[in-house]
Amino acid sequence: MDDLYTILVLVLGLVGIVFAFVQSLLIGRKDEGTPAMKDIASHIREGAEAFLNRELRTITVVAAVLAVLIALSVGWTQAVSFIVGVISSALAGYVGILTSVKANVRTTAEAMKGGIKPAFNLAFRGGTVMGMFVVGIALFGISGLYWLFGNPLLMVGYMFGASLVSLMVRVGGGIFTKGADVGADMVGKVEVGIPEDDPRNPGVIADNVGDNVGDCAGMGADLFETYAVTLVSAMLLGKLLPSVFSVYGNAGIQLPLLIGGIAIITTIVGIPFVKLTSGWIMGAFYKGLAVTAVVSIIGYYLVIRYVMAGALGLLVSSVIGIAVMVMMYIFAEFFTSYQFNPVRDIAKKSETGAGTNIISGLANGHKATIVPVLVIVTAILGVFLSNGVNLYDISSGSFYIGIYGIAIAATAMMSLAGMVVSIDTFGPITDNAGGIAEMANLDEKIRAQATDPLDAVGNITKATTKAYAIASAALAALSLFVVFDVEMPSSVVNGLLLFNPLVVAGLFIGAMVPFLFTSYLLNAVGVAAYGVVEEIRRQFREIKGIMEGKAKPDYAACVDITTKVALKQLALPAIIATGGPLLVGFILGPLALSGYMFGAIITGFPVAIWMTTGGAAWDNAKKYIEKGNFGGKGSEAHKASVVGDTVGDATKDTAGPSVNPLIKVIITISVLFVPLILMFHLL
Amino acid sequence: MDDLYTILVLVLGLVGIVFAFVQSLLIGRKDEGTPAMKDIASHIREGAEAFLNRELRTITVVAAVLAVLIALSVGWTQAVSFIVGVISSALAGYVGILTSVKANVRTTAEAMKGGIKPAFNLAFRGGTVMGMFVVGIALFGISGLYWLFGNPLLMVGYMFGASLVSLMVRVGGGIFTKGADVGADMVGKVEVGIPEDDPRNPGVIADNVGDNVGDCAGMGADLFETYAVTLVSAMLLGKLLPSVFSVYGNAGIQLPLLIGGIAIITTIVGIPFVKLTSGWIMGAFYKGLAVTAVVSIIGYYLVIRYVMAGALGLLVSSVIGIAVMVMMYIFAEFFTSYQFNPVRDIAKKSETGAGTNIISGLANGHKATIVPVLVIVTAILGVFLSNGVNLYDISSGSFYIGIYGIAIAATAMMSLAGMVVSIDTFGPITDNAGGIAEMANLDEKIRAQATDPLDAVGNITKATTKAYAIASAALAALSLFVVFDVEMPSSVVNGLLLFNPLVVAGLFIGAMVPFLFTSYLLNAVGVAAYGVVEEIRRQFREIKGIMEGKAKPDYAACVDITTKVALKQLALPAIIATGGPLLVGFILGPLALSGYMFGAIITGFPVAIWMTTGGAAWDNAKKYIEKGNFGGKGSEAHKASVVGDTVGDATKDTAGPSVNPLIKVIITISVLFVPLILMFHLL
Repeated sequence: MDDLYTILVLVLGLVGIVFAFVQSLLIGRKDEGTPAMKDIASHIREGAEAFLNRELRTITVVAAVLAVLIALSVGWTQAVSFIVGVISSALAGYVGILTSVKANVRTTAEAMKGGIKPAFNLAFRGGTVMGMFVVGIALFGISGLYWLFGNPLLMVGYMFGASLVSLMVRVGGGIFTKGADVGADMVGKVEVGIPEDDPRNPGVIADNVGDNVGDCAGMGADLFETYAVTLVSAMLLGKLLPSVFSVYGNAGIQLPLLIGGIAIITTIVGIPFVKLTSGWIMGAFYKGLAVTAVVSIIGYYLVIRYVMAGALGLLVSSVIGIAVMVMMYIFAEFFTSYQFNPVRDIAKKSETGAGTNIISGLANGHKATIVPVLVIVTAILGVFLSNGVNLYDISSGSFYIGIYGIAIAATAMMSLAGMVVSIDTFGPITDNAGGIAEMANLDEKIRAQATDPLDAVGNITKATTKAYAIASAALAALSLFVVFDVEMPSSVVNGLLLFNPLVVAGLFIGAMVPFLFTSYLLNAVGVAAYGVVEEIRRQFREIKGIMEGKAKPDYAACVDITTKVALKQLALPAIIATGGPLLVGFILGPLALSGYMFGAIITGFPVAIWMTTGGAAWDNAKKYIEKGNFGGKGSEAHKASVVGDTVGDATKDTAGPSVNPLIKVIITISVLFVPLILMFHLL
Repeated sequence: MDDLYTILVLVLGLVGIVFAFVQSLLIGRKDEGTPAMKDIASHIREGAEAFLNRELRTITVVAAVLAVLIALSVGWTQAVSFIVGVISSALAGYVGILTSVKANVRTTAEAMKGGIKPAFNLAFRGGTVMGMFVVGIALFGISGLYWLFGNPLLMVGYMFGASLVSLMVRVGGGIFTKGADVGADMVGKVEVGIPEDDPRNPGVIADNVGDNVGDCAGMGADLFETYAVTLVSAMLLGKLLPSVFSVYGNAGIQLPLLIGGIAIITTIVGIPFVKLTSGWIMGAFYKGLAVTAVVSIIGYYLVIRYVMAGALGLLVSSVIGIAVMVMMYIFAEFFTSYQFNPVRDIAKKSETGAGTNIISGLANGHKATIVPVLVIVTAILGVFLSNGVNLYDISSGSFYIGIYGIAIAATAMMSLAGMVVSIDTFGPITDNAGGIAEMANLDEKIRAQATDPLDAVGNITKATTKAYAIASAALAALSLFVVFDVEMPSSVVNGLLLFNPLVVAGLFIGAMVPFLFTSYLLNAVGVAAYGVVEEIRRQFREIKGIMEGKAKPDYAACVDITTKVALKQLALPAIIATGGPLLVGFILGPLALSGYMFGAIITGFPVAIWMTTGGAAWDNAKKYIEKGNFGGKGSEAHKASVVGDTVGDATKDTAGPSVNPLIKVIITISVLFVPLILMFHLL
């Protein structure tokens, strides 16, 4: 049975990849528009590829060194596993880029010919390439490794590899995108006085490249990692706790794989339901999501019935996981859409200046944390209770059924990643499409009536996806933590008391890490922007005739300088993420490391939520004012809202979303090195 | 022996109060300056008293209701204890106000006559009134209650009363001060174009009243509460764990009292050493602090030798406590003084606009968290190790010696509060003195050469005191948590495992609370400012001749409206602070409540640090630019830095410092109600 299931899932993973490939071919058939559009698109494509190639070189070096270290310290299988994780994660990012630079210009062309509906369809099709590829490659890799090794414990390296690359792509891309954006605006809009996306600005291609490397590659690698870590942690629990499951020995390992496999099919079923039938763009997405979710639940019921002897608690767990996803969508839309009070309130506060805009946005972001936290807590307790766990005696076997339920809830939630990523990637594609329309001097209507309304929705879906990713991270982290526990001798585990000084020390340090980590990312945006500004100024000074449109700026040089700065700024955050747990582990020992992990999760969660949600709210508050409210464009309120938008860009696109891979790197590296840490630690 | 020691400490508490009283009399003898100065000072005094009286009425109502509830649920002794705590905390705030409104105008007069040195002396003397009164009244109340009840367990109500009032005074004062400040500036500087502290601005008195109610009353009540909670938690541990101490049964209870008593004398010894001999104002403070610290350590050695049979580990603990204080001073000065890179970097980033100023300040605040966290962690582990605790077997008795060591470290640290508060209160007094000089149209030199340099140092000492308070809160919270534990049956305590779902749920919710709580405070500043703006606009409209100086504005009306708004905005944060732990406790039970407390502490600590330190850095970055750097006053960089200053005002004076009493209210109310929660909880 075991091999049969594994091969089935392997095939379903391939189905996802093939589906993505076919969608990509269909996109390629579409028209690329005018020669000017083609020219611009090729610049963006070249820039994006240049960035990614250089980043992949950096990743290769780091990964090679780490692979050797892992092989020497914890064995060669984990090293192989690690390399597969690295390659898959990088592939997810790479495909994300390739798709979006292909779909962006064609979306512009569709908008030019047929308006918002065909543009929507093409952009969403671009999204599905990314979405299905991410889940397909993950499922393929995971089932392949399991088939090869027969033991999920040997796949910890895979999780770490996926997390590490995701961190690097997220952080590097995040710094690049905002550095280029802020830098291009600072010289273009402020100093020279030309509009955004004006082709005379040497930084304009870098800015559009940024949308691809940050929002597509970064998000793709991030969601791939989240998906992979979630699935493998569930498999790990299934492996470590076989006695609590009934049908056959490896059922607990297969269930997460089968859930992922089913969702490949249900996502393909749901995709055609995403159709723009009214003005409510989010509505189209909700329809596709609802169909996928409902069909998935039926599929989960069947699998749980036959593979897990109908353990109803697990079915409830999977439904809770999907409910969490739904709640995150509703939550993020409420706190970031200008149709609701939070964003309108920030817009109103902008009337009294940038100071009150910032205070209000910060307050809004902080307040937003309450919903995801209560959702997660309710989900955690709900899963345990529905699996019949006695919460006052967690030494009994029932606790493990509960924690496995958490892992299944997270898996069910993440199994819909194919759809969620499809919806998300749609955003940066339309953003880019709008930029191309502007740069190619197309009719203003194309932006106003097609790409801009789609782009505004992109802001909401981006915030949603980040909330979704970090919420699943909280659940997955909890299950991985138990894996970490099971690896330790029971004498150590029994010492994991909340008031143990070592645990307390770990909690304090861990809770500080998201602050320290984001501080470097926030600053890095400034450093990168400064580098771009210098280069743009140099070009305006040295290349005569740019402003008159007689000479072409050197776009590639801007991309190159941003790439260099972004990769350089990546070093310190990456060292904090990987070095922190090892330092704490080898110096303060396993108890402190446990506290460290928990501290990082429980603080990282609200920090990520406030930064991503608050940032999107600042952005949309500006957009709300630009629609003519509180004085509209050019008013004092608008100027104040631009300040909030700048701050929000750094929090929502660079610092905030990097917290999810940060947490994953911390936990996976800890799980990987815990045998070594148990042997050697100072205290 | 027990009574003898208690009476000795009671007398030493009285000595502190008498010393404060004498200093206050000496200040009263000084000249109040010109009639205009007297007039302005009386307006400020009346406004401050009006605010405090109204706030005390609110406190009386809330306290009366709670006292009845406590009497009915946990017994009348705790209710009496609670009332004593409430009254003492309110007294500390009240005396703070009375002193500062007396010292402010006299400091101006001294500056007028003799320049910076006599002004420094008088302002510091004003500080000592507050400093010695805070520690005197605390020590008097604590030893008095212990003499009366003979049992520190009956003093949990006292701690809760102190914390609650501190929270209300801190929050209420914090909202008042920034609401008045921002509101007065918004109409005065921006709309009407008159300088800061111009007597024609109807909000100018409210602004100066705010400095007193926020920085003096708020800080006084806060430090009183921190001092009281720290001492009583140490006594509680001494009571609960008598078997681990050697000399006599109650030695563990007496040691904290004696440490406090000794510090009264050593602070009086240290005060004369605070003398301005060079241009380095912080140097004068460091001298006084150093003398007090060294003499105190000698005193602690003697007490520990005779009362605790020379338990050297405890002496080391007390030295570690004092070392933490020293580190907090160095840390806060580095991150908030414009002599060092962090502030200069924010100033430099202001050149590229308000957005980069905000991002840089946020990054700086986030980064600052690393130092206090590492200091606290090192202190915690250092105390345990120096007391010979086996960190992998905390069920042994040695653990309790260690946790008592933590309590003693915190007590030693807080015992110097007399000196720290003296240094801190000096700041708002000189701030007010500068304002009076401006309003009374005195020679500009008085501000430039005397009060302004003193005020700039005040920004640093304010940040220091807040870091000091929150650091001691972290230590005290840890000891109180163990008290909470000891109150629970061991079956529950043994379930306090880090990965218990209830503990995890509590951790997640608790970690979110500092974000939720500060979100209301940040918004409240805006609401209060808006109320002030409306009133000032009304006066300019309805009272003819204000701008020409022919008619006097109605200062009292502005004070009144700010008071009303501030007290109204106080309700929700107070409900979150008190209601949160009760809800979690009665619904999710004691395990979740434990997690909740820890979550709030480990997240509240970095949130408080970034907000207070980051805020002070924004403020001083503006001051650095105003000194002529990066374009000086009126430049684009200056405009950007004003935005940062506005945001920093809300974080450093309202939201950030309220986190300390928030944590204390959460823990003390939990300890108070844990017997009830153990009996009734839903899960």
